[in-house]
Amino acid sequence: MDLLFLGTGAGVPAKHRNVTSLALNLLGERGVTWLFDCGEATQHQVLHTSIRPRRIEKIFITHLHGDHIFGLPGFLGSRSFQGGETPLTIYGPKGIKEFVDISMRVSETHLRYSIHFVEVEDGIVFEDEQFVVEARLLEHGVSSYGYRIIEKDTKGTLLVEKLRELGIKPGPVYRDIKEKEEVVLEDGRVLKSADYIGPSKKGRIVTILGDTRPCTNALELAKGADVLVHEATFSEEDDRIAHEYYHSTSFGAAETAKKAGVKKLILTHISSRYHKEEALVLLEEARKTFENTEMAFDFSQFMIDNEGR
Amino acid sequence: MDLLFLGTGAGVPAKHRNVTSLALNLLGERGVTWLFDCGEATQHQVLHTSIRPRRIEKIFITHLHGDHIFGLPGFLGSRSFQGGETPLTIYGPKGIKEFVDISMRVSETHLRYSIHFVEVEDGIVFEDEQFVVEARLLEHGVSSYGYRIIEKDTKGTLLVEKLRELGIKPGPVYRDIKEKEEVVLEDGRVLKSADYIGPSKKGRIVTILGDTRPCTNALELAKGADVLVHEATFSEEDDRIAHEYYHSTSFGAAETAKKAGVKKLILTHISSRYHKEEALVLLEEARKTFENTEMAFDFSQFMIDNEGR
Repeated sequence: MDLLFLGTGAGVPAKHRNVTSLALNLLGERGVTWLFDCGEATQHQVLHTSIRPRRIEKIFITHLHGDHIFGLPGFLGSRSFQGGETPLTIYGPKGIKEFVDISMRVSETHLRYSIHFVEVEDGIVFEDEQFVVEARLLEHGVSSYGYRIIEKDTKGTLLVEKLRELGIKPGPVYRDIKEKEEVVLEDGRVLKSADYIGPSKKGRIVTILGDTRPCTNALELAKGADVLVHEATFSEEDDRIAHEYYHSTSFGAAETAKKAGVKKLILTHISSRYHKEEALVLLEEARKTFENTEMAFDFSQFMIDNEGR
Repeated sequence: MDLLFLGTGAGVPAKHRNVTSLALNLLGERGVTWLFDCGEATQHQVLHTSIRPRRIEKIFITHLHGDHIFGLPGFLGSRSFQGGETPLTIYGPKGIKEFVDISMRVSETHLRYSIHFVEVEDGIVFEDEQFVVEARLLEHGVSSYGYRIIEKDTKGTLLVEKLRELGIKPGPVYRDIKEKEEVVLEDGRVLKSADYIGPSKKGRIVTILGDTRPCTNALELAKGADVLVHEATFSEEDDRIAHEYYHSTSFGAAETAKKAGVKKLILTHISSRYHKEEALVLLEEARKTFENTEMAFDFSQFMIDNEGR
């Protein structure tokens, strides 16, 4: 599981920061990638990575501002052109389906795969045996959502060696040990299953927020997350502008990270007014409040573990 | 007057060729740039040129395939964000207005300037004292147009030295010489105006075609043009595929250039199947039939004169 930033700028593309898109690679977990937002030229950025468009299973759109969605029609067409045939699910605020449908219709783009749209509202937007994704409305000029991606805990593996030592051979009894609390063997012995199963593996939590002012729902989504991806459009000295335009400063992002008790904070969506070195000021600013902060650049990649590294 | 190619690929973006867009710089002539097509990431390409989005006065769309229009919403938004306030006219097939309107509405993009849409049909789509633009329907899977941009001839300048030698000083009489065929001076002398005006300057003709099979209308639009910009998606050995997908080979483009008697042919819209050196085979192929052929690469720039250089 890792995060690969495809675009880390705000509003308009600049030479060194494209508009927003972020890939959550789940190759080890489920052999796919999930995309969060798809600003213009996201498919161009993908060309410089190992991401395969046909492997993108889900696209989560945080909000409908152009710098977060205008790359979607082109990406969808190319995914098809490059042989993508598996269904795709797009999650996003009301309006995303209309934009995609009309773009495809006007351009006469005929996709080889089906798109399932999920109109996002507060609550669980996806759940299966591996993951739960929860959405909550943030504070932006338009409906902007944050997503909390929760990996479910996985049970420990059977301690086969220990069982063999007791003379218990593989068979239906092994499944019973996995599924039941206690198992009575044929010879009358009683086993506490927990003694023969390794430690369970705690799932990771990744929180990815759309554009927002610091707000309660951002905090709720971020609580105890292993990684929080937070916009930091402005620096603290532009606090007023940030508030006026419904954005956050890097200080605001750090405060949320601290209050939510996350393990790691990654700043993105940096205004083009901050050039390379100036942007690092935003990072320093955040680190004063929340030390384990990183700044994302285009093509930055972060592994996600439970240790906040 | 020059042509600056912003994207010269076909269908999908590749690392070295972006999808289609072409700027016709008319800075000397009218202080503006006209854009032909606006594939995804055209605004990104513009960042690497001296083109100023606010100076773009007109956008001509040849057809509505995604690789020719998906950069439009982002470009329009950025033109406004970067301070563009002058009106913009977009020419294109029916459907372009719907695509732009819905993209702006869904993304809540509020432009600081007005857009005037001209739905293109065969005939003159624009004319003023400097230029005429004529459109004709080509042969593609969808309605695809070619544009013939005709610069009007400009009158010669007044031969002031020659008039001074005759003792005729600047005054209303100078205007009369420019506007009337014959002028009677106060002293009774009669001047033939033509003798006191330099040679008129012939306007240039640039023909820019959308995707098409070779066809009669392409030929008509190209007749006697100083420059013909023609797609060459495939090489001659892929002639069947070209025909099936309503495209041209470089040989087909060269044949049209030859029959139309143009001065110069520029090939663009090269399929990504031809990598750098392979693409040059398409150029050689065309030159066998029409010698004054060039191949456009991204950021290729061609000055346009009447000499076919």
